[in-house]
Amino acid sequence: MLGADHLVRSLIAGGVELCLGNPGTSEMHFIAALDRNPGLRCVLTLFEGVATGAADGYARLAGKPAATLMHLGPGLANGLCNLHNARRARVPLLNIVGEHAAHHRAYDAPLHSDVEAVARPFSDWVRTAQSAATLSHDCAAAIAAARTPPGRIATLILPADTAWTEAGDAAPTPLPPVPDPLRVDAARVEAAARTLRSGEPAALLIGGAALLDRGLDLAHRIAAATGCRVIAPMSNARITRGRGRPPVPRIPFAVDAACAFMGGLRHVVMVGAKPPVAFFAYPDKPSLLTPPGCALHPLAGIEEDALRALADLADALDAPAVPPPPDKPAPMAPDTGGRITGPGLAALLARRLPEDAVVIDEALSLGFALYDGTHAAAPHDWLQMAGGATGEGLPLAVGAALARPDRKVVCLQADGSGLYTVQALWTLAREGLDVTVLVLSNRAYATLTGELAKVGARNPGPSALGMIRLDAPAIGWPDLARGFGVPASRATTPAEADAAIAAALATQGPALVELVL
Amino acid sequence: MLGADHLVRSLIAGGVELCLGNPGTSEMHFIAALDRNPGLRCVLTLFEGVATGAADGYARLAGKPAATLMHLGPGLANGLCNLHNARRARVPLLNIVGEHAAHHRAYDAPLHSDVEAVARPFSDWVRTAQSAATLSHDCAAAIAAARTPPGRIATLILPADTAWTEAGDAAPTPLPPVPDPLRVDAARVEAAARTLRSGEPAALLIGGAALLDRGLDLAHRIAAATGCRVIAPMSNARITRGRGRPPVPRIPFAVDAACAFMGGLRHVVMVGAKPPVAFFAYPDKPSLLTPPGCALHPLAGIEEDALRALADLADALDAPAVPPPPDKPAPMAPDTGGRITGPGLAALLARRLPEDAVVIDEALSLGFALYDGTHAAAPHDWLQMAGGATGEGLPLAVGAALARPDRKVVCLQADGSGLYTVQALWTLAREGLDVTVLVLSNRAYATLTGELAKVGARNPGPSALGMIRLDAPAIGWPDLARGFGVPASRATTPAEADAAIAAALATQGPALVELVL
Repeated sequence: MLGADHLVRSLIAGGVELCLGNPGTSEMHFIAALDRNPGLRCVLTLFEGVATGAADGYARLAGKPAATLMHLGPGLANGLCNLHNARRARVPLLNIVGEHAAHHRAYDAPLHSDVEAVARPFSDWVRTAQSAATLSHDCAAAIAAARTPPGRIATLILPADTAWTEAGDAAPTPLPPVPDPLRVDAARVEAAARTLRSGEPAALLIGGAALLDRGLDLAHRIAAATGCRVIAPMSNARITRGRGRPPVPRIPFAVDAACAFMGGLRHVVMVGAKPPVAFFAYPDKPSLLTPPGCALHPLAGIEEDALRALADLADALDAPAVPPPPDKPAPMAPDTGGRITGPGLAALLARRLPEDAVVIDEALSLGFALYDGTHAAAPHDWLQMAGGATGEGLPLAVGAALARPDRKVVCLQADGSGLYTVQALWTLAREGLDVTVLVLSNRAYATLTGELAKVGARNPGPSALGMIRLDAPAIGWPDLARGFGVPASRATTPAEADAAIAAALATQGPALVELVL
Repeated sequence: MLGADHLVRSLIAGGVELCLGNPGTSEMHFIAALDRNPGLRCVLTLFEGVATGAADGYARLAGKPAATLMHLGPGLANGLCNLHNARRARVPLLNIVGEHAAHHRAYDAPLHSDVEAVARPFSDWVRTAQSAATLSHDCAAAIAAARTPPGRIATLILPADTAWTEAGDAAPTPLPPVPDPLRVDAARVEAAARTLRSGEPAALLIGGAALLDRGLDLAHRIAAATGCRVIAPMSNARITRGRGRPPVPRIPFAVDAACAFMGGLRHVVMVGAKPPVAFFAYPDKPSLLTPPGCALHPLAGIEEDALRALADLADALDAPAVPPPPDKPAPMAPDTGGRITGPGLAALLARRLPEDAVVIDEALSLGFALYDGTHAAAPHDWLQMAGGATGEGLPLAVGAALARPDRKVVCLQADGSGLYTVQALWTLAREGLDVTVLVLSNRAYATLTGELAKVGARNPGPSALGMIRLDAPAIGWPDLARGFGVPASRATTPAEADAAIAAALATQGPALVELVL
């Protein structure tokens, strides 16, 4: 067997079932080895950022890593933006990056670059394979690195000669042990319990695994027992929500709104979350969002066992089980004068969202309106780009649908950010993924319109406006979707939106609706 | 004035007329400063790789740098692939990358990354601005770095607080002196002359500026005087060619063909070019393409004055001026059984290409057929992605058209690689650029089909084929083009192609023709 065969077998033996990517010449031995070693599903993307973002979405629902396959330094570079998002989502993810054969690197061929240097800023673990004989060992180490809690980005660089060299018939190297998440010591739990018993205004800021079913239940038991609030960071890898589940408000994006949201708090106990900070800095606005004098209490850090810490805290507080909150009715669609708006769309989704849907939120300027207005929907998961780098919505939808073909994926996609990785639509079509894409078409980088005002440019001129408006010409999303093989429609009124969304959701497979706001 | 005003004024004072990019919040002060300080044309791209590739295309024709504007580490990451290409094209290019305000970086906000580390692998010069007061100085240093021969990638990182801080009214810092390209010493010229006078089989391998009018004339004078061949690297930033200009064959992509092309040579004299090496390594094939025993003679390196070296060499050889080669008639369209083929399309282009066109060649598997078959066309420039990273064709077309609105740009774009940066179509439409895009639609990564066979996988299975075919579904290029606002058509026969290309070339402004091969 060649090194490439060992690598494919080691991936499969290590529990990796999916590989997403864009191969090039240096990856051809890997590609050729796929059919000789069945068990690894390979999905072609038309751009590497789709592969890395989809691997992120897959990991969030599958709880284990997908592999990506990218071509040398420039191919990896195309995938970095969504590796940044995946890293901030703390998912396990394994990149396989082709590289020139070792003897070829000295010649500085056109595609040569320092692949390790390209990988490092957005990887937690980087290794260049040194021989075909050690490739299985490298692969096992990479999978173990990726699976180290809470989830890491591992990048294994694969020189072509390690893939094409004969390397015997040894069985795959077993995975090295993967550590459990660190358990928080009793003293920290006791300290958090004392803080919450003090009766001073407090919030439990929960992130990571604490935002899934059991974590939310524990947090709300603690809230019921102590009177504290339960809040979440602005951006989160995954939240379970909808009818029958306790709602959790998120810290707003705008600094003034975030400070008002945190106003009056004297204590913030952090569980699987970091101190709440502004997304961006602005002149004369704070970076830290907690009010002056508010104490930050780390109960469980990002790499610690947040669920166990919450359970220990609930025990320390003798917090009894509480009934699920009463279901609120879906909000009525507001009167919007015939226009599609965030609250109107939220009301529509609260009624239409199928049971157990996976919602991808890259709605940006409409995101909070859609989140706030959809808690009355059927139970669902809510996934956001966790690193704030736009262009992950459609790729996340690809990955979520690959992980859970039994669930409907609904992608709430702002138009400007959707264009960064619009090629993902083709992979939806090719794989027949059950994804409804709702494009929120305001024909601008609407967030930036607000940001421009915040920095003091209240009457922007034509040069500034030209850099934040997406009109002239408006993007024809249904044309783009059809070009990539996805059926599509456009709606410009709430009634059209309701009909088009209902039809798209009734479709088994991909569909896109452009909602002109 | 704020730091942002100083930066915009310093760019203008330094001769930068164009800025391409995707801004975000941290760049809003820069954007707001544009309308206060007119003189810098800003062009919005929908993806950063379009901006960097377009800046490359602009520099190749304008001979000076454009600026790009990108948003933090992840935005820069999206632009890296075409920075790799631009760096290999040895063009001057200035990146301005927004960064969090200095005081905000310690908080590890979601978009935080090590921007300098992201920039370094594909930049020749990197600096993070430290204050508003020194921003004009930094900008002048960055422009000078970019303009250092033969052309470099300079990345200036702009923390938001340096842009928003008041910094007085001083005039822009003058540009520091930019060195001339190094002159090759007489001994090397003499040595090259002796080599070429030896009568042994020799080639002059010319690159960079030597591939433009005067360099080609000098090279062909030298060839006429000594009997040497004149050849060019496989990928080049720009070649002037067409009727009345001496043709220059390029080293083939395939290693066997390249070795045959170099076969019999005893000497290769390199002028503005590096030793000829294989694009990729393959088992049992050489990396260096010259035959055993062939001597490599560096006359002028990449950073030296290739034109002056050629002139000195022509003088040392007493090589007289030679008449331009007789014009060959355009090749007849071969009988292709009703299918569109590379040679057939070349014959068509040889007749149809307008005078003084700029041709962008990202034709990949069809590239050599199109190059070889179009020398009889009207005089034109031929531009390739110089770094081998696919996805630069459409961006190069954007940049070329921005640099030379008086010339027709014709983009020969392979379908698979065109999808990497397909968002460039929108910028063509928005800016009304006079670009005809010919999509070579073979619905596969056709180069990889060949590469798979070369690595020994002669009967690829469904997994392998799935990663290199672009059918199921086929991409609807006319739909994509219309979605981005570009008029489009599709041709499936040579007659349809001729009519559609004629109509597109007759359009003033962007047009796309999908040629189904």
